[in-house]
Formats: sequence, C-alpha cells, structure tokens
Amino acid sequence: MSVKVSRRAHFNAAHRLYKADWSNEKNDAVFGKCNNPNFHGHNYELIVSVTGEIDPSTGFVMDMKVLKDLIKSEVEEALDHKNLNLEVPEFKDLNPTAENIAVVIWNKLRSHIEKNKDLEVVLYETPRNFVTYSG
Amino acid sequence: MSVKVSRRAHFNAAHRLYKADWSNEKNDAVFGKCNNPNFHGHNYELIVSVTGEIDPSTGFVMDMKVLKDLIKSEVEEALDHKNLNLEVPEFKDLNPTAENIAVVIWNKLRSHIEKNKDLEVVLYETPRNFVTYSG
Amino acid sequence: MSVKVSRRAHFNAAHRLYKADWSNEKNDAVFGKCNNPNFHGHNYELIVSVTGEIDPSTGFVMDMKVLKDLIKSEVEEALDHKNLNLEVPEFKDLNPTAENIAVVIWNKLRSHIEKNKDLEVVLYETPRNFVTYSG
Amino acid sequence: MSVKVSRRAHFNAAHRLYKADWSNEKNDAVFGKCNNPNFHGHNYELIVSVTGEIDPSTGFVMDMKVLKDLIKSEVEEALDHKNLNLEVPEFKDLNPTAENIAVVIWNKLRSHIEKNKDLEVVLYETPRNFVTYSG
Amino acid sequence: MSVKVSRRAHFNAAHRLYKADWSNEKNDAVFGKCNNPNFHGHNYELIVSVTGEIDPSTGFVMDMKVLKDLIKSEVEEALDHKNLNLEVPEFKDLNPTAENIAVVIWNKLRSHIEKNKDLEVVLYETPRNFVTYSG
Amino acid sequence: MSVKVSRRAHFNAAHRLYKADWSNEKNDAVFGKCNNPNFHGHNYELIVSVTGEIDPSTGFVMDMKVLKDLIKSEVEEALDHKNLNLEVPEFKDLNPTAENIAVVIWNKLRSHIEKNKDLEVVLYETPRNFVTYSG
Repeated sequence: MSVKVSRRAHFNAAHRLYKADWSNEKNDAVFGKCNNPNFHGHNYELIVSVTGEIDPSTGFVMDMKVLKDLIKSEVEEALDHKNLNLEVPEFKDLNPTAENIAVVIWNKLRSHIEKNKDLEVVLYETPRNFVTYSG
Repeated sequence: MSVKVSRRAHFNAAHRLYKADWSNEKNDAVFGKCNNPNFHGHNYELIVSVTGEIDPSTGFVMDMKVLKDLIKSEVEEALDHKNLNLEVPEFKDLNPTAENIAVVIWNKLRSHIEKNKDLEVVLYETPRNFVTYSG
Repeated sequence: MSVKVSRRAHFNAAHRLYKADWSNEKNDAVFGKCNNPNFHGHNYELIVSVTGEIDPSTGFVMDMKVLKDLIKSEVEEALDHKNLNLEVPEFKDLNPTAENIAVVIWNKLRSHIEKNKDLEVVLYETPRNFVTYSG
Repeated sequence: MSVKVSRRAHFNAAHRLYKADWSNEKNDAVFGKCNNPNFHGHNYELIVSVTGEIDPSTGFVMDMKVLKDLIKSEVEEALDHKNLNLEVPEFKDLNPTAENIAVVIWNKLRSHIEKNKDLEVVLYETPRNFVTYSG
Repeated sequence: MSVKVSRRAHFNAAHRLYKADWSNEKNDAVFGKCNNPNFHGHNYELIVSVTGEIDPSTGFVMDMKVLKDLIKSEVEEALDHKNLNLEVPEFKDLNPTAENIAVVIWNKLRSHIEKNKDLEVVLYETPRNFVTYSG
Repeated sequence: MSVKVSRRAHFNAAHRLYKADWSNEKNDAVFGKCNNPNFHGHNYELIVSVTGEIDPSTGFVMDMKVLKDLIKSEVEEALDHKNLNLEVPEFKDLNPTAENIAVVIWNKLRSHIEKNKDLEVVLYETPRNFVTYSG
C-alpha cells in the first residue's frame, strides 16, 4: 500500500533571470522583464511529496512534523527572504528559474528522505506558473 | 483516449491518533497533540478520480452525477460528522491517519467502479497536509 | 490614512453543538449531525484584522510579526487540537458555534490591541461557512 | 533532469450536452440539466503542462511567455466567450463534455509543442469537476 | 453582539449582455465578446451573508442549514443550468450583468430573512470579477 | 442601488523594508528578514473595488474592461517586475510596506474613478498577509 504524502510550505525571495555570458540585448530578448538588474520577487509556494509504504505501527508513510521541520531547516532557512542570485550558493552560476529552483530544493531534501521512498517537489512561482520535479 | 475525471467532495470528522498497545509516553512522543484523548477534528477535502476511456456515445468516462452520488453514499454518509475512532468500524483497530483514511475510502469505492478503470483518492486533512492513494 | 491589516492563521478542533438543558430530541432537531455526542471537528481558518493609522516611522499599522505571535499565544495555543466543549473554559457553558467561537477569539485578542485600533475576526468553520465579528 | 512546467489560463463558454440521434427523453435521462436546449455555461480553468529536459542555456523547459501566448492563440481565441456547440467546429458532431473539450485542447496544442516533450491538459469545468488528458 | 454569518453556494448559467434598443454596433462597442448572440456562460460563486444578534439559546445568528436550503430553493433552483436571458423572468427586460444578478438574488432572498437582520450578496462571475450588494 | 464591483489583478516585485535614518541594528530589530539589503520579493495580488450606482442603460457600475485596463496602465506597468525601493518614485522616501503600497495604488487610481464613486484597494503581500485601504 504505497501512499504519497504531501506537505505545503512557502518562502519568498528576490531573483533575476539572466545569463552572465550573454549580451544585455540577448538577455532582454529571452528573459524580458525577468532580467531587471534590480531584481524582482515572488512568494514561492512549495509542495513536497514523499511516496512509500505505510508503516503499520504508526499509520504514517512519514511523520508530517518531521517533513515540516525538514522543509524548514533545508529549504526555508536557505531561501526565505533571500536574494537567490546573490545569497544562495547553488545559484552562483545557475539561473534561478522555477525549474532550477525546484531541482535545487529536490537535491537539498533527497538525502534526508529514506532511500526506498520517492520524492517530488512542486514549486509555484506564481499562482499561474508552477513546475514539478521528481528526480 | 484515456482521460482522468475528478470530483471534489468533503466531510468533517473528529479523530485521535494513538496506538492502544503503546504507553501514553510513546503515544505522545509519536503523535503529539494528535493524541489528545478528547479528540480533535478536521474538514477533510476529498478528490476522487476515475481514469478510463471516453464512452463515445456520451462523451463521459463516467457520469459525474453517478460519481457524486457514489461518494455521498459510500464516503460522506459513513464519515461525515463522525468520530472516526469510535463510530467508523474500519478504524476500530486502525489508526485514522490521513494515509489510512485514504486507503479506507479507496477500498469503499473500488468495487463500485468498473474493473477496467483506475481509481485514485486524494485526501486533504488540512489545506497544508494531504495524501494520495491509487491502490 | 486608516488602513486595515489582516493576518491569516488556522487551528483545528473537535466540538459538539448542543444545549445541556434541552432534550435529545430537541438537540437533534436544532443541531442535527452537529449534536453527535462523540464529537466531530473542523479545520478553522482565521483572519484577524486590525484597523488604524499607519505609523509614519515604520509604515506599519501594526507589526505583522507581533500580530502573528499574538494569534499564536492567545488563540492557537488555547484552541488548536483541542476539544472545545471539554477543554476550553470559555465553552463550559457556551455552545461552540462558529459565532460564539469568533466572539471568544475577539475577546481574547481585544485587550492586546491598542485601544484606538479596531479589531475584526473572520472565522471559517469550513470553506463554505464563515462568520465575521467586529465587537 | 526532466521537469514539468505548468501554466494556468481560463476562458468561459456556453454549452449543451446532448446527442442529436437520441430522443429528448434519453438525453434528459443521461444529461439532466446539462441538456438545457437554451444552453448553460462555465468558467473553464485550464492548466497546460509540458514535460521535458531543462535547457541548460536558459534554465527553461519551455519559455512560459511562449506557452502563455500559445494558449491564448490556440485555445482562448477559439473558445473564450463562445457557444461551444454552435461556434466551435470541433464540436459540430462531438458532445462538448469536459472530457472531449480537454482532448480538443490537447490536439490543438500538441503540434506546437516540441515532439520530445510531453503535453498534459487539466480542465476544470467547475471548481468541483475536472478532467486530465495526456494524449 | 452582532455577527455576520456567511454561506457559500454556486450555480452555473448562460447569458448574453446586450440592450435590445441599441444597434449591434453599439452593443458590440459596449459589451464586446459578452454580446455574443449565441451566449456564453459562467460558474457563479455566491456568498450570502446575514448579520444579526446571536440567539443565546442556540448560539446561532441563523441556522446555516436553513440558509443553505433557502439559497437552494430561491436561487439555485431558479438560476442553475439556466439561460438567464431566455429562462429567468427577472431578466426579460434587465441586462444580466453581475451587478443586476446580485440585486435580483438579494431581492429573492430579502423577504425570507428576518426584518431585523441585514442581508449581503457577493457574486463572483469569475474568480477575477465579483460584485457586492447590501440593499 | 449602490453596488461594489471588484476586479482582481496581480504583479510581482522586489522590496526591502528599512528606514534610512535608523541604525542597522534598529532596522534589523524592527524589520527583521525584511531588511535584507539585497532585497526579497512577493507576488502581490490586488483587488480593486469601485462602489456606485448601477447605470440603468448598461447594467454596469463601471465597465470591468475599463477597470482592468486602468489597473494595467496605472498599477501593473508601474510596479510589475520592479524593485520598489529603487525604481518606483513614490517609494524614494517611503517604506514599501504593504500598507504604503496600498495607499500609493489607491492614490494612483483615485483620479481616474468618477468622483461620486468610492474606491477600495485590497493588497495581498502573501496569501497570509493583506491590507485594505479605502481612502
């Protein structure tokens, strides 16, 4: 009986989309307003899901309090109220698109989740744009 | 042309998470506030999805009115405004975690859905915690 | 420049609607399934709003972190994961309807908000039923 | 690193569910109020998802502005504020159920999405009824 | 202790915005796509609120089951799955804008609500457009 | 028959809360993480409401397309994807708290709304924090 358990969390951050080795013109053409050199920002809503067997002694796939605390220590403390480009090492040379942020979050969490369980990250950049990454 | 059709429903209930053969201390350590012996409760939001071929004569995978009535008779009448631990037979010896409630709901519905169609249950215990079970 | 600032919070609880000095029949007639003697429960979503002048030095009507902490200490710690009828003194002789819970929450918060500011409480018992109290 | 990127859009339309070669009685029995010959209508909320590898030069699976414009030109301009039965050629002989609308939208979009990427359409007919089609 | 109690409901309908004594050109200029002679439609989400004193014997301003049934008999049965222009007498000579629909709903409900209580209707034509009428 | 008509819009932006004539220590104590000198950001959701009489010839209080375009030209073009502190003149010497942003938006819109109509702005800084300003 494999069940997926999901926990919602959130953080907000500033970012800028651009590629350092491209001209301003090319960055503007590709990233538009997202290339604002003074940054813009988002409320990121995050859903982290873990899939595995129900532990018959607890009835849990994973204790949601543990998952909540893990999201707090690994994701919220690293990203909340931060400038992703300037302050988060993973984005030093990586464009902080929603896709790349989701992959970074998945990588931060993966080693803390039991190996026989699957991990999925859904990241809403806005209520209208979101991405899903499962490894 | 296989399509998944989904119907949202809801019920509310009281429950307590604990294991009868554990000490109070262990129950508190594992289940925290959810072990309150006087119970607490939730508004459960439920999404039931059925996946199958579109019937070319109706354009339906499954008549949503039939699915709505099925959820009402099998799930809402059994669980709505109930104390899950005391009044729902399936939880007499089963901890009513979100995971286990989703499995119980899936089992209640499965025999009423055509064999060649897939069934999925998503159960929100709160807007922030939810589980998915597909058999 | 009077502005209303609002903060969303949530708690869950069990309750039962009934009047001790009424017969079972009358309680059932008035409160229906909400009179279940084994209790049922809800995820209560709460919006607390404070209206007042913007402090020109901070740009705040009220620091949202202070309001968040106040809701936590006065409301969430008193009501979250509780049986309202059995464990919350205010409901010892008061029916825990959404209306009365909103009034109790307002009264718990009022003395902690500056006198020259207005207070409003919106309480969602379900996503479909909610109440508003402003004193 | 395969990621699913999703974009939300919306349109509203009138429709009627019925089958021309059935009697009125049979249409009423199967489609109920949805068979109103004067039509009824919905706000359709649409989520279009594209799954593929992240382009390392941009950090995008697909530029969301391109996807947004594609949904506008292919879906919104064809369906928004339309009578699906009378004005949308795809439904001339096809019942405009949510299932069939989702398939029509998927077919309209598929040729505009790169072949090595997957396409999924989720269509909410109401906040309580929705369908998912992935080809 | 005056409290506002609110109940959410919904219906869907087709409509067309136009003025019979205007030219097509003027109707198009004013109402745009909403003037489609073949109609379009919406899922209308409705919030009905009643404000009054809490009855100390029940703890209710108004029994929500009574309000729910009243909305069903007076609003949903009159408007759900209907063509507002063709099938709802109130709109025979009245343009079914969100504003006018809200006023019609308010008038349908007012006589059923006790005189010493206030009535408010909020009507969402889409999740992005809504109106509020309080008499 | 005075009706309030409301339109939802959205923009995202970076900002930093601080007061230039305060020490770093005082800024940190008052604004916490919001004082990050590298900025953070939000998806701002905006509801603009106009209250007035229904025009009997159109059935509108105000044409929602006009209101939508007004929000676009006056608010979205000025604030979307901007750094509020560095790029929006109104915040050159004004702390861009949610309260102050709401007042700025209200002031930008007020002269474009007919004098005999009321204007209200609700601004969500996050889904959990929002402010309301009515002049």
